[in-house]
Order: sequence, then C-alpha cells, then structure tokens
Amino acid sequence: MDFDLAHGIAVLERTPHTLRAMLAGLPPAWTDADEGPGTWSPWAIVGHLLHGERTDWIVRAELILAQGAERRFTPFDREAQFRESRGRSLGELLDEFAAVRAENLKTVSTWRLTGAQLALMGEHPDLGPVTLGQLLATWVAHDLGHVAQISRVMARQYRDAVGPWRAYLPVMDR
Amino acid sequence: MDFDLAHGIAVLERTPHTLRAMLAGLPPAWTDADEGPGTWSPWAIVGHLLHGERTDWIVRAELILAQGAERRFTPFDREAQFRESRGRSLGELLDEFAAVRAENLKTVSTWRLTGAQLALMGEHPDLGPVTLGQLLATWVAHDLGHVAQISRVMARQYRDAVGPWRAYLPVMDR
Repeated sequence: MDFDLAHGIAVLERTPHTLRAMLAGLPPAWTDADEGPGTWSPWAIVGHLLHGERTDWIVRAELILAQGAERRFTPFDREAQFRESRGRSLGELLDEFAAVRAENLKTVSTWRLTGAQLALMGEHPDLGPVTLGQLLATWVAHDLGHVAQISRVMARQYRDAVGPWRAYLPVMDR
Repeated sequence: MDFDLAHGIAVLERTPHTLRAMLAGLPPAWTDADEGPGTWSPWAIVGHLLHGERTDWIVRAELILAQGAERRFTPFDREAQFRESRGRSLGELLDEFAAVRAENLKTVSTWRLTGAQLALMGEHPDLGPVTLGQLLATWVAHDLGHVAQISRVMARQYRDAVGPWRAYLPVMDR
C-alpha cells in the first residue's frame, strides 16, 4: 500500500484510544509484565511512544520541511522512557500521550502537505536519506508495531496457563 | 503468570473496546487488507472472534462444568467467518461481538467459579485433556493474539512505504 496522508492520520489519531481501551485500569500484573530481562512491559512501551511523540516524529518532519543546511536527524533515545517515566503511573502516561498526539496531529494538519513536500528528504543518522512520506509512514507503522507488541507481551504471560493450547497459539512462540 | 479469573476477565471485557478503538470508521483500505493469499484481514479476524464467541468458549466451558458422559468438544470451524460474515460490515460485526462478549461475561460471572471447578477437565478433539482454567486462559490469550495480528497486518501494509526504516521495524518481517 502506498502511503496516504489521510489514511495514515486515521491510524495515528486512533492509537491513544486503542492504548486506553487495552490498558487503562488493568492490574499491574498485566501492565508491568515483560518478556524477560531487557524486554519492555506495556508501561515501558507507552513511555517510549510518549518520548517519540515529544522528540522524534514532528521534530524530524520540521527538519525535513525546513530544507535547511542541516537535515540530519538527532538520534532517537530508545531507552529514554526508563528515565522519563520513572515514578509515573500508566494512566498519566496514557493521558499525556493522548494530549501530545492530538497536538502533533493538529500541527501536521496546519502544514497542508503536498505530494511534493512528502518527497522532500532528510538524513537519518544510520539509515541515510529518507523522505518525509517515509517518515510519516514509519510513524504509523511504529504505532501499530508497538500495539502488536503490547498485545503479544500480555498474551505470553499465559504461555503456561493455556496448557496444550500453546501449540495452537502462534502469538506464544513466533 | 498463573491464570487468575479476575485478571483474565479484565482483558476479555476490554477486547471489544480495543477492537472498536482500532478499527471503527477506518477506511476499507486498512480493514480489508491482508498479508497475501490465505491470510486474514482485520474484517475476517473480527468475524472469527465473533464466531468463537457464539460457538466455542462458553459452549466448551459449559460442557466441562456439566461433567457429563460426553466431555469431548466439537471441533472449532476456523473458516466459518467467511460464510457467516459475508455481506456484513465491520461496524455490524464489532457491535455484535461487543454484545455477545458482554452476555458471555455475564454468564461466566453467574457461575461463581471455584478453584476446584477451574481444575475440572474436558477433552479437546486434537489436544486431549484440558482444564477449564486452561480453556479460560486460552480465551484471553486468543483475544490478545488476534489483536496483535490485526495490528501486524495493518503495519505490514506500509512495508514498502517506510523505505529504509523497514530494517528498524521488527513487525514488518518477524
């Protein structure tokens, strides 16, 4: 599927509602569970999404749109949430994510992006030249990937509890 | 994590809201998309969840609880949704799923299940002896697996659109 701005935004605006529907009010036994050392719980994943919302997508899009001399993105800190979310409840993180996401989508709508702008380029510190369209498509896919991850992390808590059904549940082992 | 009835129900009661938040009102470009021949779209997955809700979980739980002479489950039809959902909109399926799920959880609450009942056994046509607790844990994990699948199927529509970021998005290829 080609990237389509309206379709992409339809997903981006749903993500805060999806995360709230999945996680708000759930016992910590679910929201603090992970897949073992070095893996992320739903709480950590929401913190990661919030950090990206504050520092990554819009900042990079603005850098591309400006087409200034410096088009190289600042590297994204994949561990920032463990510092920034410390002591914060999942409910707080969900509310803040919803607020910042709404602001960011308002910003995008004020840009009234054209096809020509979606083809403008920036430079990813590791991946090299990327377009604004690819950045926005990645924003969407990144949301979806982490929603899938939250659901998988939770499902795997019942890896043993499901007994022999484990063989029929691809989410457990694949 | 051991199966805990209250924790399991906390997930089961959220799933209809999660599916609505993710999918209600999305363009068919998202909800009818799949991962290729023989794979399922979000529309097909919601139909599958609805079919399970009508024919599988509660029916099997009742068979176990009755502890009659016949404790062998009827095999589940994994393709039923392509017959039963034909011509039905995703919105209809989401509404019906929410209604049947709510009924089913009401039924479960009237059972006031004890630990001894959760250890009662039935017989899966392929997997052999299984407990009521394993069945209920599987109901939860099955929901979560399909929420993860919907999100993955959608993410993969942007496999090409994300350009070089594909290498950083495990959801695309793993």
